[in-house]
Amino acid sequence: MVETRRFPSKTLAYFSQRVFEHFGVPEEDARVAAAILESADLRGIDSHGVARLHTYYDMLELGRINPRPRVTIVRESASTATVDGDNGLGLVVGPKANAIAMAKAAEAGSGWVSVRNTNHYGIAGWYVLEALKRDLIGWAMTNSTKLVAPLWGAERMLGTNPIAIAFPGMEEPPIVIDLATCAAAYGKIEIAVRAGEKIPKGWAIDRAGRDTDDPNAMIDGGALLPLGSDRERGGHKGYALAIAVDVLSAVLSGANWGPFTPPFALRQEIPERSVGKGIGHFFGALRIDAFLDPGEFKRQIDDFVRTFRATRPAPGTAGPILPGDPEREAESLRSVEGIPLVLPVVLELEDIARRTGIALG
Amino acid sequence: MVETRRFPSKTLAYFSQRVFEHFGVPEEDARVAAAILESADLRGIDSHGVARLHTYYDMLELGRINPRPRVTIVRESASTATVDGDNGLGLVVGPKANAIAMAKAAEAGSGWVSVRNTNHYGIAGWYVLEALKRDLIGWAMTNSTKLVAPLWGAERMLGTNPIAIAFPGMEEPPIVIDLATCAAAYGKIEIAVRAGEKIPKGWAIDRAGRDTDDPNAMIDGGALLPLGSDRERGGHKGYALAIAVDVLSAVLSGANWGPFTPPFALRQEIPERSVGKGIGHFFGALRIDAFLDPGEFKRQIDDFVRTFRATRPAPGTAGPILPGDPEREAESLRSVEGIPLVLPVVLELEDIARRTGIALG
Repeated sequence: MVETRRFPSKTLAYFSQRVFEHFGVPEEDARVAAAILESADLRGIDSHGVARLHTYYDMLELGRINPRPRVTIVRESASTATVDGDNGLGLVVGPKANAIAMAKAAEAGSGWVSVRNTNHYGIAGWYVLEALKRDLIGWAMTNSTKLVAPLWGAERMLGTNPIAIAFPGMEEPPIVIDLATCAAAYGKIEIAVRAGEKIPKGWAIDRAGRDTDDPNAMIDGGALLPLGSDRERGGHKGYALAIAVDVLSAVLSGANWGPFTPPFALRQEIPERSVGKGIGHFFGALRIDAFLDPGEFKRQIDDFVRTFRATRPAPGTAGPILPGDPEREAESLRSVEGIPLVLPVVLELEDIARRTGIALG
Repeated sequence: MVETRRFPSKTLAYFSQRVFEHFGVPEEDARVAAAILESADLRGIDSHGVARLHTYYDMLELGRINPRPRVTIVRESASTATVDGDNGLGLVVGPKANAIAMAKAAEAGSGWVSVRNTNHYGIAGWYVLEALKRDLIGWAMTNSTKLVAPLWGAERMLGTNPIAIAFPGMEEPPIVIDLATCAAAYGKIEIAVRAGEKIPKGWAIDRAGRDTDDPNAMIDGGALLPLGSDRERGGHKGYALAIAVDVLSAVLSGANWGPFTPPFALRQEIPERSVGKGIGHFFGALRIDAFLDPGEFKRQIDDFVRTFRATRPAPGTAGPILPGDPEREAESLRSVEGIPLVLPVVLELEDIARRTGIALG
């Protein structure tokens, strides 16, 4: 059991907001950026919450990220836009681009926005939850720095490239899908290293491209495997999905793609060449009433959710859950009990507090 | 080695067309329907080509499918439409709905069409190849009769629910993604049965919901597993993708979803209740020039393809390929050498020829 210290999520959000403001991020942008980190921590996605604040701090401190970007539409049609994020925080550019997709949907039935010249945008799930508030089916994707090998490859070529999409229910909670297109998250490799444990077959390869159960062999120049892991179990499918996310987010917008996607953190390797601007995101929004009466849609989703919960359970399990269940359960617990932070993260936040003079809680 | 007999693809396509016409399918609809089956056979997806003609024959013969559907838009916006397929062949309804998505994209930058009251539409890949001809990024999904268990479930609840999407190159061939959201295709289970072989772990469960390496145990009341197979390797992700396809194709259009999706063939179990009309498809089209100069996009795709082909190979492999490579190689071979049909399929075609009086070649 790892030792943790609990903080109210609002304390962490206020701290994050003030750190962003410290670098000149406008108040409203800083508030939204902090809310995205808070959402990750509340929903149990610890790797994407305040655990990343020190990296944002480093990038802003070194002037690698523009705190006051002019986010512009560089090309558009009734239902689409290409957005240039002016090298802003992804946590600032992402919400603005997502808002453009939602506004296009209000006018044209759907809205699709590809974004270049941006940076890490937090959890993909936050963006589709925003769409749900407006009775939209939201989509969010992003590329990210290389960690994943293509099937039959021996090196990192793709990011963990997530896909999120959400569907609202009436009485039942929404179905909220947010998945990385690799077999297992990088965070799980790090947990295995700290625990001194082996990792399951199918998660990773070593630097020679061989299957490995040693998490250090993945970190030391190895790579994660795509969803499906190997050819027999569909590794070509996870690889293909990661390509789709990369092309929609980065090729279509004019960002860097594949192995040339710039890193999130300072300590990571700089790509050998640049093929575009920054990283890329892709947002979509579909107006439900452009297809079906929204009440009818939500009643059917309720029926869908109840039908799947009633599936006969596999032996040794409590039966299927729905996408979004674990995150919602974490949120209801953590909104009361607070966010448990491991000691290294607490020390990082205290370091930021010391350097900026902003009190942590 | 299974014994096969080779037929020119055009011979089979002409035969299929005349069989459809025999039941009153209009000539142009019959020609396109036959072309979709031909495309599957050329591209090496044997399970979706003329191997299915006898099932279409049965359904038409029994009047279960409407040979002359009135395909109508029941709701629309600038970039979206809901289409009712009037219980036509999916091979007839699908191309018309896909054409609506492409026409919407021409006007509004993107087009998205959800389809109800339709039937099996052949390979998803055919639809996105049509979009490529028009410099569109095409998307195609469909739900289908239950074969796949949710993660932690012990019964069939979802179809193999494919996702297809394609991106054009300039000098390089296009990237053509067409994947089912389960770990392994049902056809591979059938092949293992015929060969008397076991199946790999991660493909299927038996009727009690336990992992099995016996292909007969899957067929006899068991189920396929979603892409990712188990929790450790991301089975929740394949399950979530199958849900997304089901909701976009069937809930959004007012078709039957999940375990209530009607079967393709006569011998399959009829669902216990109806929650909509027929099965559902979902088509999308994005105009490339609504985001980026198409020439620039295609040059980047060429670079992308060459970069991924140059990935350092994993030991014992020739290195990564690109999605669409195997199907394109099959097509270039089979367009010269013909389509190899196994004896049972030849006998089925001869049976149709005898009953309809249409000569096979």
